[in-house]
Amino acid sequence: MSLLEAKSLETALERGKAQRLTFDHLSYTHLRDDVGQVPKGSVILDDGTVIPGYPSIARIQALDPGIGKQFEGPFWAEEKMDGFNVRIFQHEGQCYALSRGGFICPFATDRLNDLLKPAIFDDYPHLILCAEIVGPGNPYLEGHSPQVQEDVDLFVFDMMVCNEEGFLPQAERMALVEDYGLQPAEIFGRYQPEELNELAELILQLDEEGKEGLVLKPENQKQRAKYVTGRSNIYDISVTGEALLDLPPEYFTNRFLRMGLFMAEHGQQHDHDRLNELGHAMMQGLFRAVQESQKNGRVSNHYRCRFNHRDNADRFMEHIELTGGQRVKVHRGMPRQEGDYWVLEFERIHQRMTGKINQALQGGRQFD
Amino acid sequence: MSLLEAKSLETALERGKAQRLTFDHLSYTHLRDDVGQVPKGSVILDDGTVIPGYPSIARIQALDPGIGKQFEGPFWAEEKMDGFNVRIFQHEGQCYALSRGGFICPFATDRLNDLLKPAIFDDYPHLILCAEIVGPGNPYLEGHSPQVQEDVDLFVFDMMVCNEEGFLPQAERMALVEDYGLQPAEIFGRYQPEELNELAELILQLDEEGKEGLVLKPENQKQRAKYVTGRSNIYDISVTGEALLDLPPEYFTNRFLRMGLFMAEHGQQHDHDRLNELGHAMMQGLFRAVQESQKNGRVSNHYRCRFNHRDNADRFMEHIELTGGQRVKVHRGMPRQEGDYWVLEFERIHQRMTGKINQALQGGRQFD
Repeated sequence: MSLLEAKSLETALERGKAQRLTFDHLSYTHLRDDVGQVPKGSVILDDGTVIPGYPSIARIQALDPGIGKQFEGPFWAEEKMDGFNVRIFQHEGQCYALSRGGFICPFATDRLNDLLKPAIFDDYPHLILCAEIVGPGNPYLEGHSPQVQEDVDLFVFDMMVCNEEGFLPQAERMALVEDYGLQPAEIFGRYQPEELNELAELILQLDEEGKEGLVLKPENQKQRAKYVTGRSNIYDISVTGEALLDLPPEYFTNRFLRMGLFMAEHGQQHDHDRLNELGHAMMQGLFRAVQESQKNGRVSNHYRCRFNHRDNADRFMEHIELTGGQRVKVHRGMPRQEGDYWVLEFERIHQRMTGKINQALQGGRQFD
Repeated sequence: MSLLEAKSLETALERGKAQRLTFDHLSYTHLRDDVGQVPKGSVILDDGTVIPGYPSIARIQALDPGIGKQFEGPFWAEEKMDGFNVRIFQHEGQCYALSRGGFICPFATDRLNDLLKPAIFDDYPHLILCAEIVGPGNPYLEGHSPQVQEDVDLFVFDMMVCNEEGFLPQAERMALVEDYGLQPAEIFGRYQPEELNELAELILQLDEEGKEGLVLKPENQKQRAKYVTGRSNIYDISVTGEALLDLPPEYFTNRFLRMGLFMAEHGQQHDHDRLNELGHAMMQGLFRAVQESQKNGRVSNHYRCRFNHRDNADRFMEHIELTGGQRVKVHRGMPRQEGDYWVLEFERIHQRMTGKINQALQGGRQFD
């Protein structure tokens, strides 16, 4: 099956909807936008192989009546992890990891050796593993699921096949994960749409554990849904205060709304500890930002990640310097060898926060 | 002196920078934009009298070094009240109140009789009183300074003269306030730029009392400054949760930043009560919004204000229905006579909040 005609791809390239890229010896085309039925974020190799983009998952914000409305039959509840989404494929004996946007990620690709047993690709060369890379050693995100407290780890949550639409069925994926010793995102079980109390209990347990939430995958229909814990909003806010003016402001307002809806649904309106936690979370990052501005004259987030190969660290640096511009500051002497790894330390500077806080602390006048 | 040539005004009218309006028997021209030296919000009467717009006041967010940087000599510290700003003038024996934007406000104009002794205009017919109308009975704002717990009251904080730039000097204004029995916004005293500890003590006292902050007015220079309490941010957030998605999202993020800067400046980073208060404030309005959506299918803020004259209540209704469109819902049978007053009850509906919360509670799917 061919998802994409060669001719459509040429037109897309001409119109700037697709882009030719290379990584090491591999050249590929990356879709910046949907092209026909092929979603943005998809990648096309030079032999025509299509690695489909990972689709968006709709959010529900009320189990009742959301579940009954979205699902007609049984569905699986799995942990939605807080990390970054990659699609892993093998080509000519080498594994690559694609970012959600459809770029080969030098960091994730470099670390696949440590994080994944690749034997599955020997038997299923056209398989694509969809996985979350989670942990404080990731170079993209503030915050991460609590399971990983150092470096990064990898959790498989879906499988696709090159040139095909959709995901492998649940049973098939679960069997492959088992047979090939892969590490899955936790699968909590199979639920019926009527089991609202059980689902509420499950989400409250995840909420307690500081986990992000659930992805709900129906067995006999296509549409999935995600449903996140109230506390994941507090957590997101607690780790992004330094970027208060640099993230879209809706980043924050949307999370307040989600938290309010979650607390109202689960009768937590009088959970004072949780409300207190929110207030502290909102200010912690700002206090850090003020402190950093006083100390270094800038507000930034700091990243430290490890590579097996210096080449990949260099590629990653090139990538972030190209896309991050003045916002990225790679520390001197990087990458630095530490044991078997090459360590890269860098900062992402929040330019609006830096400007506003410096100006305020220097006693400047601001007109709103 | 003429601030504005007749010719400039005609050009401004042609270009849409000015607009002809009437209120009862008075016709006037309102500046939507600066015209020459005359600022937007100014009003020009048909006899050429100019009532200048009220200028923006710059914000400082650090007493140290903000005060030293902004002020070369002594300045007066006055209470910045939480209400709406009006300029009051007399014309042909009748007092009118202009909104900040430069419209004659039917509500404020109606209530001047109750709120102000007009004798001062007999002796100074060209005087303009700048005042804050404060209280829960105002038709524009959620929230108000704690001094006024019912209906509205009026506090004079500046004086101007028709056709002239700038404000009356402090001593002159204070004397007139005294002589004519006007109610001033509280004047805390005269400070030198070195008196940072005294100012810090003052702002912390206001913070404790739930007041909004200070306006600082230098004696011998033009530039004023405002400096608000940390808690005023919590208060603003606590009363605007229903409008979380309908206000510009920066409304919230700016207040978080101001609060963080204030707490950091005054060493309150470990004031757990204050941080707890913030968390509660952020969610209270959302809980009210969810409840209202469940009960009435919409999210709104409710207003109740009183008029002396039915004419003015009708004018006000016409004005809000014209400018508020579908967002305003005047209750049936309004205005309703109560004692000597005409009462007007209405709602401002938050359309984005209504849509989002209804959809979420009905179990809808949302893509971020």
